[in-house]
Amino acid sequence: MLFTAYLRSRVLRVDPGSQDMQRVSNAIEMGAMAFLRREYVTLVVFVAVVSIIIAAAGYLTPRELVRPEMAIAFICGALTSGLAGYVGMRTATKANVRTTNAAKKDRTSALNVAFSGGAIMGMTVVGLALLGLGVIYAVFGNVEDPTSFGVVNGFAFGASSIALFARVGGGIYTKAADIGADIVGKVEAGIPEDDPRNPAVIADNVGDNVGDVAGMGADLFESYVGSIVAAMAVGGFLPDPVLVKVGIVMPLLISAVGVLASMLSVMVVRTGRRDPAASLRLGSFLSSALTLAGSLIIIRIGTGAYGLFVPVLAGITSGFAIGLLSELYTSADYKSVRKIAESSRSGAATNVIEGLAIGMKSSAVPVLLISAAILVAYKFGYISGFGGLYGVALAAVGMLSTTGMTVAVDAYGPIADNAGGIAQMTNQPEEVRQTTDALDSLGNTTAALGKGLAIGSAALTALALFSAFSQASGLSVIDLMRPEVIAGLLTGAMLPFFFASLAMEAVGITALHMVEEVRRQFKEITGLVEGKAMPDYAKCVDIATAGALRQMVVPGLLAVAAPLLTGFFLGKGALAGLLAGATVTGVLLALMLANAGGAWDNAKKYSEAGNLGGKGTTVHAAAVIGDTVGDPCKDAAGPSINILIKLMSIVALVFASVFR
Amino acid sequence: MLFTAYLRSRVLRVDPGSQDMQRVSNAIEMGAMAFLRREYVTLVVFVAVVSIIIAAAGYLTPRELVRPEMAIAFICGALTSGLAGYVGMRTATKANVRTTNAAKKDRTSALNVAFSGGAIMGMTVVGLALLGLGVIYAVFGNVEDPTSFGVVNGFAFGASSIALFARVGGGIYTKAADIGADIVGKVEAGIPEDDPRNPAVIADNVGDNVGDVAGMGADLFESYVGSIVAAMAVGGFLPDPVLVKVGIVMPLLISAVGVLASMLSVMVVRTGRRDPAASLRLGSFLSSALTLAGSLIIIRIGTGAYGLFVPVLAGITSGFAIGLLSELYTSADYKSVRKIAESSRSGAATNVIEGLAIGMKSSAVPVLLISAAILVAYKFGYISGFGGLYGVALAAVGMLSTTGMTVAVDAYGPIADNAGGIAQMTNQPEEVRQTTDALDSLGNTTAALGKGLAIGSAALTALALFSAFSQASGLSVIDLMRPEVIAGLLTGAMLPFFFASLAMEAVGITALHMVEEVRRQFKEITGLVEGKAMPDYAKCVDIATAGALRQMVVPGLLAVAAPLLTGFFLGKGALAGLLAGATVTGVLLALMLANAGGAWDNAKKYSEAGNLGGKGTTVHAAAVIGDTVGDPCKDAAGPSINILIKLMSIVALVFASVFR
Repeated sequence: MLFTAYLRSRVLRVDPGSQDMQRVSNAIEMGAMAFLRREYVTLVVFVAVVSIIIAAAGYLTPRELVRPEMAIAFICGALTSGLAGYVGMRTATKANVRTTNAAKKDRTSALNVAFSGGAIMGMTVVGLALLGLGVIYAVFGNVEDPTSFGVVNGFAFGASSIALFARVGGGIYTKAADIGADIVGKVEAGIPEDDPRNPAVIADNVGDNVGDVAGMGADLFESYVGSIVAAMAVGGFLPDPVLVKVGIVMPLLISAVGVLASMLSVMVVRTGRRDPAASLRLGSFLSSALTLAGSLIIIRIGTGAYGLFVPVLAGITSGFAIGLLSELYTSADYKSVRKIAESSRSGAATNVIEGLAIGMKSSAVPVLLISAAILVAYKFGYISGFGGLYGVALAAVGMLSTTGMTVAVDAYGPIADNAGGIAQMTNQPEEVRQTTDALDSLGNTTAALGKGLAIGSAALTALALFSAFSQASGLSVIDLMRPEVIAGLLTGAMLPFFFASLAMEAVGITALHMVEEVRRQFKEITGLVEGKAMPDYAKCVDIATAGALRQMVVPGLLAVAAPLLTGFFLGKGALAGLLAGATVTGVLLALMLANAGGAWDNAKKYSEAGNLGGKGTTVHAAAVIGDTVGDPCKDAAGPSINILIKLMSIVALVFASVFR
Repeated sequence: MLFTAYLRSRVLRVDPGSQDMQRVSNAIEMGAMAFLRREYVTLVVFVAVVSIIIAAAGYLTPRELVRPEMAIAFICGALTSGLAGYVGMRTATKANVRTTNAAKKDRTSALNVAFSGGAIMGMTVVGLALLGLGVIYAVFGNVEDPTSFGVVNGFAFGASSIALFARVGGGIYTKAADIGADIVGKVEAGIPEDDPRNPAVIADNVGDNVGDVAGMGADLFESYVGSIVAAMAVGGFLPDPVLVKVGIVMPLLISAVGVLASMLSVMVVRTGRRDPAASLRLGSFLSSALTLAGSLIIIRIGTGAYGLFVPVLAGITSGFAIGLLSELYTSADYKSVRKIAESSRSGAATNVIEGLAIGMKSSAVPVLLISAAILVAYKFGYISGFGGLYGVALAAVGMLSTTGMTVAVDAYGPIADNAGGIAQMTNQPEEVRQTTDALDSLGNTTAALGKGLAIGSAALTALALFSAFSQASGLSVIDLMRPEVIAGLLTGAMLPFFFASLAMEAVGITALHMVEEVRRQFKEITGLVEGKAMPDYAKCVDIATAGALRQMVVPGLLAVAAPLLTGFFLGKGALAGLLAGATVTGVLLALMLANAGGAWDNAKKYSEAGNLGGKGTTVHAAAVIGDTVGDPCKDAAGPSINILIKLMSIVALVFASVFR
């Protein structure tokens, strides 16, 4: 947290630029904060209701089952998750205008500000997570009674549920605003992106903050907490008291090593004077290498052997590989994106077909890698004496141990994107926009790594939570030949599809309202197109806010209700099937949606870079349609699914002992 | 078969119309037959190699394992499947021109011819299936040695593998030709559908026959055989010799009842003088009701109790319900399609987003219905003493027992579609085209039922085959907490995505070639647009044929190789996981692709009917793009996935005892 304060002071010291720039930046900050406030007010009701349910279950069932303290842990998890989103967004809205101003000087300065903003977010996420888990552990944990550590499950439950709402709500907001701004502004009125005449332009920039920054922060907070808690939960069920102690502490220690490694790497990126792309890549690599080295030492000291190191290694390397594969499918430097761009030659339909095909195909190798990581981690977990499932859980911890650095690299992108928006809206010189665009485009590529990690780790974490649930509920075997397991598997597999459809429809409907409002303003406000009259930004911000808040409720409740209902009515065998089914299709759908969306986006950028005729051609128009289709896929539905599968597993784990 | 010959004589008695019409019809028939010939030549190699492998495995392993006779059964299954496709297509190409001619008289006559054509196909499918299975049963079956009935698995293997190639190849052909014809003809050159000036018009009509008729025939042949064989296989593992005998014969008897019921219903539709929609609906309902009544009697006689009737009832009713739900999501009379049409107001992108969302959402209730059918069928199978899994298998048999009627209703659509094409190409009076269009549009709605049955039954059949595999391979439990099962589950779940991406990319690439060729002809052949010069139809037929044949190989081999490789290298636990994973995502993806495609298609038709501005508006243009995206989804990738999951299960079952 001290390191975060230090970074924050460095960012705030940078000149925020002219009055004009600050005015725009303030408008964005106000819109973003207003959304966050309204979102949190809505969620207070949810948190209150759920914590009462947990407390009631705690008091009404025997002490070994649900514990009333979990309600407190749940509230803490929810609060911390909200705080992580708030701090991250606050910082991002301060950093964006300063990045614009720094971009007037040179690219390295701009990178420095934007990356520091991202790093504040990253270190806040991991700092708050470890702090929260540490406090819960210290207050409620009791070495004499290993089941007492189960209280941390409540913390993860709180973090996950807030993250799901934040991701879904933020995703609907940002994509509805983006599509609304693009369809009318860029396509129909023919004005550039982020032009101040576009009524949806402020909503669009607010969206980048509430969706890409706050949503992503809550998301990775949740992943990070989830992986640690899953490993602790599996560790708590180990047969031997000595193993239990080591098993519960080890995930916290490895994560702590990852935090130190990330801090060091952040400093290297910040103070380096290299090419931005090389800087970021070096930082990511360094943080992984340092974490591996540190883990090796800790595992040797803690267990007296090296066996548990292999799962950590499997997690880190497979996570890295999945990230690189995402890049392969979504970067214009490779074949897939070019094929999409090529297929735009016969129109939007073939572009969309090709994009869908590439999205579906892109899940193949990552899934094989995840499967291989499971087999290896299980094997070495077993050999080490901690059991195969603990190995799998530790692989997830390893994969996410460098989250501090991952978030820094990930969150820097939207800051650079916003900085470009501010440059455009305040009519900065062309070079400023070019600098921010270059940083933004680099951010798109490096963000692929973060997405890959989020999905890969979600699979392993959900699996670990799933096995912890099985142990907690006393299932000795989950037989795929039992009808209730098969029915659960089918139903669970359906949930990510259903959930994604809700998120995508919400974006579609809100975007349609936005399009109609923007069209209305262009028609009714005289002098708007000529730049003589101001658009009504607030109306567009309102539409996005209302649409997002209203439509995040059903998908969010679905995630909590589905496992509870299945467990109560069909029993724990069906619930186990449900979790397995949801995890499996969730991972596939998340990979498909993320990669298809990324590929469409970069195919459009490839065309805009002058290839295949460049802007203004029918090829480009087709590519724009593909990109718009990809928007809700990659930024609303896709990333929420990762959270969905973990949230369902954690709900099952918390209430495991209640089901028959 | 006699009934088929009778229907055939009735169809051939109808006047095939003018010289001009016969010329066009002959061109379509020649193209279709040429494709089928080349396809079968390619497949001879595949059949030869696989039958040698089976025979070798049969001679090299102990007799209780793989039997060499299976190679013969495999060849028979492949031949019969090919024959079903051939006969169906031959009939369809005879019936189409006669339907056009009959449409000059009135709608009822046209329906009569088109439906009789479909019925020939339907009765051929079920007749050949029962004949083939009966012969194999009689020749190789031995009541003293229940495992001898396992030879029928080879027949199902042959039928499924040919069906997969036919579906994929036919799907690529028909959709590449369709998209090619539409994008350049309708969109760019602005000439109507099926205009003789369009170079791809013959290829397009050939495609309807090779994809929608021959492909669908092989597909439903495979489903039908698969469900019966699965039930026989599960029956063969029953613990008691008396149960085994009844268990093996019952699926054949119920299917025979279904055939009689279908024949009666076909006669009712043919001779009735009602409104076409009412006729077809009555026919479908009647065949189900008669089959239920007949099954009740047979089950009472065969088992002395009514317990096994419930699974049959569950199968028939849930299949019917899934079909009706498909209609709900894909008919313009209901909300979903209208929402897609509405969302076209803000462009193609929102149309596609909404369509994807509806596709994903549409899988929810069908999957719950399938799950409920599984639970009910299992329970009553268990109560009846035949075991839960036998109940599930019998539910699939029930669902498909009326396949004769289903295919009749399904295949009639493409015949009417082709009849419309012939009318357009030979410049028939407007009323003729209106009559065929009305029949075609009715066919789209009734076909939803067939698709629902195909998917629902695929889930149950695959499940039954999967459990037969587990028993054959000696797995007493398939534990979802074992790493190899989880890894298999993930990998298997990925396969339908990968497979679908191959099919969709194949369509995209072939369509791109087609578009370029059609554009070239419009540019280079002088007088083509004015109707003074003839296009080079053969070139387009060639492109579709070559593209389809080349690109059906990899997906087809994937389906056979994946279970074999998994079984050999990772063992039978992983293979069981693979099958479960593939079944689960296969069902979801198939439902999503089929329903999204159907909904897009009808949203376009809704717009073309004059809603939201009608043809020529940007709203219509957006709807056309959605429809084109849906084409490979609903007619190439989607329906192949049903076959994929069953083929993988049957491969596993045939080689079950070989894996460690």
